[in-house]
Amino acid sequence: MSELAARAEKLDATDELGGKRGEFVLDDVVYLDGNSLGALPAVVPGRVEDVVRRQWGELRIRSWEESDWWTAPERIGDRIAPLVGAAPGQVVVGDSTSVNVFKALVGAVRLARLTDPARDEIVVDATTFPTDGYIAESAARLTGCTLRPVAPADVPAVLGDRTAAVLLNHVDYRTGRLHDLPGLTAAVHAAGAYAVWDLCHSAGALPVGLDEHGVDLAVGCTYKYLNGGPGSPAYLYVRRELQDRFDSPLPGWNSHAEPFGMRTDYEPASGAPRGRVGTPDILSMLALEAALDVWDGVSVEAVRAKSLALTDFFLECVAEYVPAGRVACLTPVAHEERGSQIALRCDDAGDVMKRLIEQGVVGDFRAPDVLRFGFTPLYVGFADVERAARVLARTLA
Amino acid sequence: MSELAARAEKLDATDELGGKRGEFVLDDVVYLDGNSLGALPAVVPGRVEDVVRRQWGELRIRSWEESDWWTAPERIGDRIAPLVGAAPGQVVVGDSTSVNVFKALVGAVRLARLTDPARDEIVVDATTFPTDGYIAESAARLTGCTLRPVAPADVPAVLGDRTAAVLLNHVDYRTGRLHDLPGLTAAVHAAGAYAVWDLCHSAGALPVGLDEHGVDLAVGCTYKYLNGGPGSPAYLYVRRELQDRFDSPLPGWNSHAEPFGMRTDYEPASGAPRGRVGTPDILSMLALEAALDVWDGVSVEAVRAKSLALTDFFLECVAEYVPAGRVACLTPVAHEERGSQIALRCDDAGDVMKRLIEQGVVGDFRAPDVLRFGFTPLYVGFADVERAARVLARTLA
Repeated sequence: MSELAARAEKLDATDELGGKRGEFVLDDVVYLDGNSLGALPAVVPGRVEDVVRRQWGELRIRSWEESDWWTAPERIGDRIAPLVGAAPGQVVVGDSTSVNVFKALVGAVRLARLTDPARDEIVVDATTFPTDGYIAESAARLTGCTLRPVAPADVPAVLGDRTAAVLLNHVDYRTGRLHDLPGLTAAVHAAGAYAVWDLCHSAGALPVGLDEHGVDLAVGCTYKYLNGGPGSPAYLYVRRELQDRFDSPLPGWNSHAEPFGMRTDYEPASGAPRGRVGTPDILSMLALEAALDVWDGVSVEAVRAKSLALTDFFLECVAEYVPAGRVACLTPVAHEERGSQIALRCDDAGDVMKRLIEQGVVGDFRAPDVLRFGFTPLYVGFADVERAARVLARTLA
Repeated sequence: MSELAARAEKLDATDELGGKRGEFVLDDVVYLDGNSLGALPAVVPGRVEDVVRRQWGELRIRSWEESDWWTAPERIGDRIAPLVGAAPGQVVVGDSTSVNVFKALVGAVRLARLTDPARDEIVVDATTFPTDGYIAESAARLTGCTLRPVAPADVPAVLGDRTAAVLLNHVDYRTGRLHDLPGLTAAVHAAGAYAVWDLCHSAGALPVGLDEHGVDLAVGCTYKYLNGGPGSPAYLYVRRELQDRFDSPLPGWNSHAEPFGMRTDYEPASGAPRGRVGTPDILSMLALEAALDVWDGVSVEAVRAKSLALTDFFLECVAEYVPAGRVACLTPVAHEERGSQIALRCDDAGDVMKRLIEQGVVGDFRAPDVLRFGFTPLYVGFADVERAARVLARTLA
């Protein structure tokens, strides 16, 4: 056994989150794609079966009340809240991330204009996951704003009297770079604008601190580190002090103060439900609710500590095993700039990833030349990490 | 046995759709709330279990290709298409009805302005299900239009050079009135405007004929007569000739011509996928796909014929059994004006519905005074109808 393999064994033996792996359905594969689709929590299939067979099949329409379907969006939002550092009553689940980016960004522009109607610029992370950029462009067009794409580090320099809202990613989907949420949020506020954060690649992997850092609005998906299942509903956070002024561009009947009043005039609900739109997608939503059970007794700080230990160890193994010059790490080495993934630039990355997957190491490929490995601390161990680096080295040899 | 009960027995014996009831999970309850939440098709639980345990649990990320998750929105759209009279390639599934109303209505206004930028009015059914009105108000605000709510019958009189788009309901959610889709669509076109139809209360209950009548855009839910499950994803129809000009206000990465190119510039996909937004909600979507199996070998015309026979028979039973003056029918008697539900105005309707449900007859209550009974021809029989009227009469006696 190599020194690194022996060390992995020791690290796994003392891993305080090690027991969590048993709460997931996993096989012999090293699954490093939880930053794309989280593994299946073992509790989910039974709960989904109950939702389908009993709640839908037997109770049918009565389940909207008796099975508490109606309140699921805010109830599940409150389960996600502590994972992103939010007090209860500020997170609501539903719709896709893209749709929530639209709500948040148009909402942010409208908030800014309440005090200064002349603000007409939306700043967006130029390196963002594409959908945020496309939706930002649409939000700008529909609100009469100009869209200004800049790299996150350059955001403070472009903020000014005209800035209405800024849309940023907490962790870059491609490089795994962790952006400075507290600092950038403070800069946005200093300019009198509103900060919208996309947490897709950070929630469930590291502390976010939405309340602590005064973030205005945030969105995130639930199918990566939150393991909600393929395409499970996203969430929207609106800071409590802004809720009464939040003016959604998608005011569906579910966000009405009196949804069953069937009134023709729209009166927005107070609190988190104001972010709802149409009828919630119950099957997917209750699968997500079950999936969140794995967080019972888990601290996000412990998850972050293990995440950094895993990515550190992966970089060490790669440096030791992989022939020099075959890969270049795109992910920052500094802990305060690193999310929970490692992105390696590599020739023929698409082909290399295919061969890794054939050998039981599952990451993913992002065009044109990136191998992406996500480390989910709840179910990835150090022996997995050592094996992944070993297989990568063999593949590149 | 009463004459009506005997007739019900005979009608059930010769019902060509009678065998379909066995494809649903039903008990002794008379379920007349399928216009709110369709009953569970028996094939669904097993398919959902496979999606959760094998596709997600075992194949994980590979299922996006190997289980054809990625193409589900348009594949399932093509399963719905024949039920609404659309040729393949024009229907895409995803998001809620409210979100689809937003896409369709903003899209319709933009289409109108391509040839006449001065059009600045959206006409909306004043009696609509509230969410359509709220979303129409938002669409008007964001596109700089005036919103004009009028009763459907008065629509032709208000159309003009300024009309950009008209949003109408095929069947009124409250009264069950069926509106004149061919005639109103033609009137909208004669004014140079675009017609958007909400099919929530007609799709799966009666022929819609989207292609035949030249409807421009349409939306609908899938959890009523299509039995897709609670909050199952809605769909969007964009007529083929308009697809290349359809300009969605929600251009997410799933509607990009090259979604995995991760390009910063947005280039819309051609065809139905242009109506997609974010990552599709796979669990709910594949439950819907399974639910659509019950339509194999069923003609919408046969469904419509049985639906009218059921509602005719219900009205006859109510007239025979219920003391005169206790209820008043809000649903038109003329077949060409009737959907697949009967709405009865009644004093203390909320309380009456509670007592009906206690006695195994499930309809629903719509404030302030309406008893609503939906008739799903695939699983409601004539004996159910006779029993419902009998229990109603006893309750009101």
